[in-house]
Amino acid sequence: MGRQKLYLEKLSRFFQIRHLLLRQALAECLGTLILVMFGCGAVAQLKLSSGTHGMFLTVNFAFGFAATLGILVCGQVSGGHLNPAVTFALCLLGRERWRKFPMYFLFQTIGAFFGAAIIFGMYYDALWDLPGSYNMTGPNATAGIFATYPRENLTLVNGFFDQIIGTAALIVCILAIVDPYNNPIPQGLEAFTVGFVVLVIGMSMGFNSGYAVNPARDLGPRLFTALAGWGGDVFTFGNGWFLVPVFAPFLGTIIGVMIYQLMVGFHVEGEVRDKKSTEEENVGLTNVTSNDNSKDKENKEMH
Amino acid sequence: MGRQKLYLEKLSRFFQIRHLLLRQALAECLGTLILVMFGCGAVAQLKLSSGTHGMFLTVNFAFGFAATLGILVCGQVSGGHLNPAVTFALCLLGRERWRKFPMYFLFQTIGAFFGAAIIFGMYYDALWDLPGSYNMTGPNATAGIFATYPRENLTLVNGFFDQIIGTAALIVCILAIVDPYNNPIPQGLEAFTVGFVVLVIGMSMGFNSGYAVNPARDLGPRLFTALAGWGGDVFTFGNGWFLVPVFAPFLGTIIGVMIYQLMVGFHVEGEVRDKKSTEEENVGLTNVTSNDNSKDKENKEMH
Amino acid sequence: MGRQKLYLEKLSRFFQIRHLLLRQALAECLGTLILVMFGCGAVAQLKLSSGTHGMFLTVNFAFGFAATLGILVCGQVSGGHLNPAVTFALCLLGRERWRKFPMYFLFQTIGAFFGAAIIFGMYYDALWDLPGSYNMTGPNATAGIFATYPRENLTLVNGFFDQIIGTAALIVCILAIVDPYNNPIPQGLEAFTVGFVVLVIGMSMGFNSGYAVNPARDLGPRLFTALAGWGGDVFTFGNGWFLVPVFAPFLGTIIGVMIYQLMVGFHVEGEVRDKKSTEEENVGLTNVTSNDNSKDKENKEMH
Amino acid sequence: MGRQKLYLEKLSRFFQIRHLLLRQALAECLGTLILVMFGCGAVAQLKLSSGTHGMFLTVNFAFGFAATLGILVCGQVSGGHLNPAVTFALCLLGRERWRKFPMYFLFQTIGAFFGAAIIFGMYYDALWDLPGSYNMTGPNATAGIFATYPRENLTLVNGFFDQIIGTAALIVCILAIVDPYNNPIPQGLEAFTVGFVVLVIGMSMGFNSGYAVNPARDLGPRLFTALAGWGGDVFTFGNGWFLVPVFAPFLGTIIGVMIYQLMVGFHVEGEVRDKKSTEEENVGLTNVTSNDNSKDKENKEMH
Repeated sequence: MGRQKLYLEKLSRFFQIRHLLLRQALAECLGTLILVMFGCGAVAQLKLSSGTHGMFLTVNFAFGFAATLGILVCGQVSGGHLNPAVTFALCLLGRERWRKFPMYFLFQTIGAFFGAAIIFGMYYDALWDLPGSYNMTGPNATAGIFATYPRENLTLVNGFFDQIIGTAALIVCILAIVDPYNNPIPQGLEAFTVGFVVLVIGMSMGFNSGYAVNPARDLGPRLFTALAGWGGDVFTFGNGWFLVPVFAPFLGTIIGVMIYQLMVGFHVEGEVRDKKSTEEENVGLTNVTSNDNSKDKENKEMH
Repeated sequence: MGRQKLYLEKLSRFFQIRHLLLRQALAECLGTLILVMFGCGAVAQLKLSSGTHGMFLTVNFAFGFAATLGILVCGQVSGGHLNPAVTFALCLLGRERWRKFPMYFLFQTIGAFFGAAIIFGMYYDALWDLPGSYNMTGPNATAGIFATYPRENLTLVNGFFDQIIGTAALIVCILAIVDPYNNPIPQGLEAFTVGFVVLVIGMSMGFNSGYAVNPARDLGPRLFTALAGWGGDVFTFGNGWFLVPVFAPFLGTIIGVMIYQLMVGFHVEGEVRDKKSTEEENVGLTNVTSNDNSKDKENKEMH
Repeated sequence: MGRQKLYLEKLSRFFQIRHLLLRQALAECLGTLILVMFGCGAVAQLKLSSGTHGMFLTVNFAFGFAATLGILVCGQVSGGHLNPAVTFALCLLGRERWRKFPMYFLFQTIGAFFGAAIIFGMYYDALWDLPGSYNMTGPNATAGIFATYPRENLTLVNGFFDQIIGTAALIVCILAIVDPYNNPIPQGLEAFTVGFVVLVIGMSMGFNSGYAVNPARDLGPRLFTALAGWGGDVFTFGNGWFLVPVFAPFLGTIIGVMIYQLMVGFHVEGEVRDKKSTEEENVGLTNVTSNDNSKDKENKEMH
Repeated sequence: MGRQKLYLEKLSRFFQIRHLLLRQALAECLGTLILVMFGCGAVAQLKLSSGTHGMFLTVNFAFGFAATLGILVCGQVSGGHLNPAVTFALCLLGRERWRKFPMYFLFQTIGAFFGAAIIFGMYYDALWDLPGSYNMTGPNATAGIFATYPRENLTLVNGFFDQIIGTAALIVCILAIVDPYNNPIPQGLEAFTVGFVVLVIGMSMGFNSGYAVNPARDLGPRLFTALAGWGGDVFTFGNGWFLVPVFAPFLGTIIGVMIYQLMVGFHVEGEVRDKKSTEEENVGLTNVTSNDNSKDKENKEMH
């Protein structure tokens, strides 16, 4: 066993990446891969089994828990955004540096691309056996396994609005979960709670176009399908629908951030600021006690 | 980044509301908005997709987890009632001041109103495309997406009883969860547990009239539908059914509070009171030790 | 507000029951009422809506989470058994006194009786409207909402074996969860875990006769149906089937306790005993240090 | 009660096994028994009830939560692998000794064997009543209740790839959950999270051949069916399909370990190593302070 440990440590030292941002981007890549692999896998299972091995609720559960697992895999390293809209929200609020945004977006899209590729490989036989599976329309069209498409009769305007609402709802809930001044859940359960948010969005906002609410999750798999046999139609379908899940979520993010901050965020932040300035005065007077207090508070925040 | 932080803090100071009750009411408004948006969204998805994108279990999950998320968003600020019946129960028990009640009721109703409005906007195309969706009866009637209506053949008496039982069950469970003398779950998991309560109520008490058990959740969306095209029929339908989910829950609250207090609450409260008076005597004798004990106890309660 | 608090405390003192066993039995009664109310409510909703408002999975979820909520309501007071088989297992292992057993059994059965009564009242109209709902057989027979009955072609022997296996599985899992020497989950999550156990048993062992695995949960509602209109047939049906869910669970409990103790329980218990005796020797030598250690250990066990 | 306690302790001492590896193997056996009993029980319920008492989602939930419960039962003693692929992964990473591997594999298979036997006994009548249930093909074939078989038209190559992907996904998620340098969840919730992983794999990777991703879970029940009446066909079916879920998972484990280590594991491990070496220098200088720090860190890791 001693020799194995030595060898493992050598490997670890050899492959260790010391560049922080690259390491974080790689982790985001793996997290988004897991999100898309499990999520799109559930859509594939539902579609290819003609409903015997799944239903829309299964897809909702899969995307929700896939988000949880993706965050668990990479959260300690990169924060577990898995979604450029989330990165964008945290940059807007000054909690992440802006230079992270393009890097994260790129690697999240790459992760989503490979997640789709894995599902494509896994269900290669089943896709091949289904007549008409590589068409864009028809009962057996399977492009919707990977990227999102609007349901029939959905106007572009309503679809755009749909993505804005969905992302705003996602961002409001995520901000409440990760707000350092309004931290309502025990440390370590954030990933599960975000999974519930994604689950609920799927159950109530998934009918119009399949709740992408994530530019990377939609763009990566769409690129993959363009290369894997469905062709450029994946971009031209629905008068350029593919632009909606890429751009609307960022608008939704801005709205979500505004709503949360105006209705809850600014006030809890201010309350903490007010308390701190009062405390600082006390510190001048009773130094030892206030130190103990701050320690206690730290303990409380940890739970 | 430095300039962004400065700007954000300026914004925060500008919009900060220092009036505590208003701040709390705003938070309740956002929480109830989230509850109704996700919950009614799931009903809309079930109804408008004719069952391909949902089923009644989906609605139960959506309302349950929507309650969880609503509480998480506003719980730290306002307590996360989302329901005038819950506010009423806590006022009855002397844990909240009575003057909170009308304010919370109002803002919860406003939040529910806007939650319904968002879902209406999101599924605007789908509602418009469905023939007869703005009628009160018929296979395509969609008023039930927003407010609750009794199923055919339900008498008003049974419906009233149904709402009383549902709310009493809700209140008994919530009181057990938040009772300071009988705190069975780790801090921070209350929101999830309340979500489970709402989920279970939906799975076992949802057949008669759709388990409103919440005056604000029902009244707000009903007002919205009256304005949005369904007209005054939403109030006259079923011999004034709309009064049942507004008044029965408060009666149910009183019964729930009585059952819980008589069967569990008074006794655990009394036990703590008895223990405390015994301890106080000990304090007189062994001052230092009992201080340490109380500290330990505090630690235990935190977990 | 001052006057309300005074009045509430007076009430509390007036109704406080100081007899511990009675208090615990009352709490068990309320907990089992909640279990049966939500669980049987879900069966009623499934049956009376002809499947539009539920399915068998809904019933599984309802019974699982109802068990969780029942335990949360009474667990701090009475331990939250909700099931005479669980009380029996803990008595067998010397963790509860034997004199608790008959008292708990009685009050659990009373709670189950009233839980069934509440659901009967809630769905009174729907039961009345269903032709043939008060027969014991036929497509609309509803006695199965309250108590369990074997599916057609199930022999009594297999049914007896089914209840033994189900209860043994329940007891093995519950013992693992509450074993003081093998405590794998954070304090406060036991109720949720037991809920998962009940959920899983329903999903995999519910086809034969509806997984009573609980004498009180079956006997109480059966007594209620005998009084409420179904008559003595509820006892004579299936060659006296009603005796199976009353007696088989206790046999299953003995088997479950034996399996768990032989395969896991005795060994972890022994390990702790061995460690303790080693530690006691150390205490003699290094008194101060070992005190600190024991304190640390206590902290660790708390989490 | 005193005499009962004495008798119980005598029993405990008599049956206590002091050989650590045997004790662990026994615990693994019970854990895997629980996994297979609940998991295959859900498949049996779905199959034998012709869908009235279950659906594929039920099977997914049952296997997921069964994994959770199996881990909870044996995790403190043996680590709760329940799967030779997991044992293999931990051996590869030097976290378990290699000599555990054959012992765990053997006892996991034995546990799975008996888990299948229990379900066979429980549903004996129902299996016997179903015409053609002991055939390998046809609408009533029930061999798939116990072991996994490929769906029609699945090539061996795709099936092999399917098992590799499934196991790799499982291993990546499990490594993230149990990685000592990247521990994202509160202690005690690992079992639940692993349950979610199994659930998600079932929802998105279960269509091809039923997501064994576990050599013991597949081999044990297959051996049982060979003895219980289905005969040697269970091994010859599908050109020796039974070898796929026995060998592919180990290949998938190697790939999963590589992916996780290269993209996340080596870097977090290295970061901790780097930090530690920096800290060690500080210790030399400021001894007392660093002790306090390490204590704080310990506290943080515990939560």
